[in-house]
Amino acid sequence: MSCPAWKGAIVTIKEKARLLKADAPYLANSSHKQRNQALENMGKKLSEHKAAIFAANEKDLAGARENKLPPALINRLVFDESKFAEALAGLADLQNMPDPLGKELLRRQLDEGLILIQESCPLGVLGVIFEARPDALIQISALCIKSGNAAMLKGGSEAAESNRVIFDLLYQAAIEAALPENCLALAETHLEIKELLSCHEEVDLLVPRGSNPFVQYIMENTRIPVLGHADGICHIYVDSSADLKQSTEIIIDAKTQYPAACNAVETVLVDESLAETFLPLLSAALKEAGVRIRGTEEVQEYIDCEPADKADFSTEYSDLILTLALVRDCDQAIKHINYYGSHHTDAILAEDEESINSFLHLVDSASVYVNCSTRFADGYRYGLGAELGISTGKLHARGPAGLEALVTYKYKLCGQGHIVADYAEGRKQFHFEDLDL
Amino acid sequence: MSCPAWKGAIVTIKEKARLLKADAPYLANSSHKQRNQALENMGKKLSEHKAAIFAANEKDLAGARENKLPPALINRLVFDESKFAEALAGLADLQNMPDPLGKELLRRQLDEGLILIQESCPLGVLGVIFEARPDALIQISALCIKSGNAAMLKGGSEAAESNRVIFDLLYQAAIEAALPENCLALAETHLEIKELLSCHEEVDLLVPRGSNPFVQYIMENTRIPVLGHADGICHIYVDSSADLKQSTEIIIDAKTQYPAACNAVETVLVDESLAETFLPLLSAALKEAGVRIRGTEEVQEYIDCEPADKADFSTEYSDLILTLALVRDCDQAIKHINYYGSHHTDAILAEDEESINSFLHLVDSASVYVNCSTRFADGYRYGLGAELGISTGKLHARGPAGLEALVTYKYKLCGQGHIVADYAEGRKQFHFEDLDL
Repeated sequence: MSCPAWKGAIVTIKEKARLLKADAPYLANSSHKQRNQALENMGKKLSEHKAAIFAANEKDLAGARENKLPPALINRLVFDESKFAEALAGLADLQNMPDPLGKELLRRQLDEGLILIQESCPLGVLGVIFEARPDALIQISALCIKSGNAAMLKGGSEAAESNRVIFDLLYQAAIEAALPENCLALAETHLEIKELLSCHEEVDLLVPRGSNPFVQYIMENTRIPVLGHADGICHIYVDSSADLKQSTEIIIDAKTQYPAACNAVETVLVDESLAETFLPLLSAALKEAGVRIRGTEEVQEYIDCEPADKADFSTEYSDLILTLALVRDCDQAIKHINYYGSHHTDAILAEDEESINSFLHLVDSASVYVNCSTRFADGYRYGLGAELGISTGKLHARGPAGLEALVTYKYKLCGQGHIVADYAEGRKQFHFEDLDL
Repeated sequence: MSCPAWKGAIVTIKEKARLLKADAPYLANSSHKQRNQALENMGKKLSEHKAAIFAANEKDLAGARENKLPPALINRLVFDESKFAEALAGLADLQNMPDPLGKELLRRQLDEGLILIQESCPLGVLGVIFEARPDALIQISALCIKSGNAAMLKGGSEAAESNRVIFDLLYQAAIEAALPENCLALAETHLEIKELLSCHEEVDLLVPRGSNPFVQYIMENTRIPVLGHADGICHIYVDSSADLKQSTEIIIDAKTQYPAACNAVETVLVDESLAETFLPLLSAALKEAGVRIRGTEEVQEYIDCEPADKADFSTEYSDLILTLALVRDCDQAIKHINYYGSHHTDAILAEDEESINSFLHLVDSASVYVNCSTRFADGYRYGLGAELGISTGKLHARGPAGLEALVTYKYKLCGQGHIVADYAEGRKQFHFEDLDL
């Protein structure tokens, strides 16, 4: 664990989490000006030490090449001028966003002189575990500080050198804005993740990003609430009323534009009335785009493809592979999606109003789409600003989650000696009146 | 398990939960008129069969007396004319509340012809485990139906006879409003609770109400998100600026008005500057009200009381027992509360603005109070209508939780063939514009 204040000292993750928890209320109480100052300092410090950051990143890249990591992972690990400029722009955007804290959500007089206020406030302490991407460390730290949350951060170990240099700069930036000593901490080893999972008394929310089995492991091994998604099994249903040319373009985009993304389509359900006309069309386009098709027995009657079985319906390929199946109608498509899907993002391609409305209302997913690519499920594309993650849970935050997912509320009740016995014994009555915010 | 549609059939809780999950989207899609019709039917059916309900309740009461259950439990078990009238009034109130579903929370144009809508919708399937109170079954069923959630209900077994009769009427009422067959189900045995805990693929939220160890057990033995609270260790801090007479009245109310409630005070922290004047005053009042005092060593120097040790700081007495301790100042009180408290409800008694503001901002609890009794922490008293429970978690719902806690949202995105490649490759740009709701 790296943290300037503890340099040289051996501090366990549990101890560090306790310190974060103890300081969290003071961070929550910091002014918007202070938190924005920290973001401004972050930008300045990163710029001043750009050479050192790039040098550290070079070390990480050398290690990655030596260990023959896949090109996609190396691409994410690279922190170059263009990603650096994007990171600085992200910090500036976040500074311009309004303060998410201290917003009054409700102001209600319960009785004369007894005023209830529901007000937004930070969650407290976050644990964020993310992929080996130096720009992610900057974005996540900035989101936490903007929202007044203390955070334990753990980035992919392939980026350890870059993260250490960047974290020290971010931490100093926060301290120089007079934020509490224990506002941010960096965990550096894989073993520390396990320790973090046991900190349910200190950590209010875990945000794991990464592979499906990794997130699944986190969800199964902690009592801390988790924001995120393990599976991303997204569907597209092609209704009998669909525009076939447009449908082909959308499916190609949803499968091939970035196949490793969680919002890439994995299963396409085609209305059986379209089998003869649409399947050959789609098959040709998919094959041209380099996509392998796995089709059910019925599909194999119309096109040449690999066989699909039930296990394919629950598989996130994260690759240029697609499952194709026929359905009787929109209702069967909806039932298939609710049963096999991961409640992430599912689309209908149709012109018929009734089919569209059924699909929008009955598919139980965070994002339900009409006539567009599932790849739009993303905080930036939703105009939410920086994205923390995408949640397939239904509580608190659902779908792409940004700054607002890092905020909760508390109730403040101010009286003048009010006691409950007066109301319970009929001497007083409540007079509820919502006041202007 | 009782459910008219399965009379005679053996259906496990898991199977039943699957059926609830399969029908949940159709319940979510029912109209507000239909759901209100179900509530109206409930009132009518209960009234028509009042005699049968009272007869069943008599059987439960006879059993309870035979088993020598404590008077407090028997009082909750009684379902008499007055509680019956209250239950009917509750149903009528709920009918008058606006539809919590289908509310647009956001309507944003992402680009020409690509419209994002964030819309409220039900959670899906709830599991609610509640105390032996027949009126609770009515209130909870009505809350679930009003909010379009399917629910598995398990009431305290002491109320089994009453619950069976009442549930059958409530279920018929829902079916006669043409709601889906699997909208409500009743679990009847304690073993079924264990089975319910394993249904994380079917159940979206568990709401356990009951004793501290019971809720703790639930929280530790399920992967389903839980709304509720195990502990209710509430504090009152008496600041050096407090009005001493008013403070005494508030403390007496918070401790004695209903000592078994989770929002009753357990620990009172007194500013040490007040020790000489306030402790004897408070002690006399508490003793007169029948409250046993457990004081720290410092407290024992000023008043005659039982000794308190650190374990008392973490104990919910749920009885006429109170821990008293001295603190140096408001800051020490805040630290004590954040460390030992259960983040439920904590109050400051003070006139000094600075102390009040520090306390309101820095105490990390769902409800933070000034100059009033902690006993106000309650959905009805907050004007929320019927209360489902009080949450000490920070995600989704915090503090007293009513109808709004049963609702989540989904994103709907409607396009005209929009694909992500156009934006990723620079052929198109996003033009975010929030539209009128």
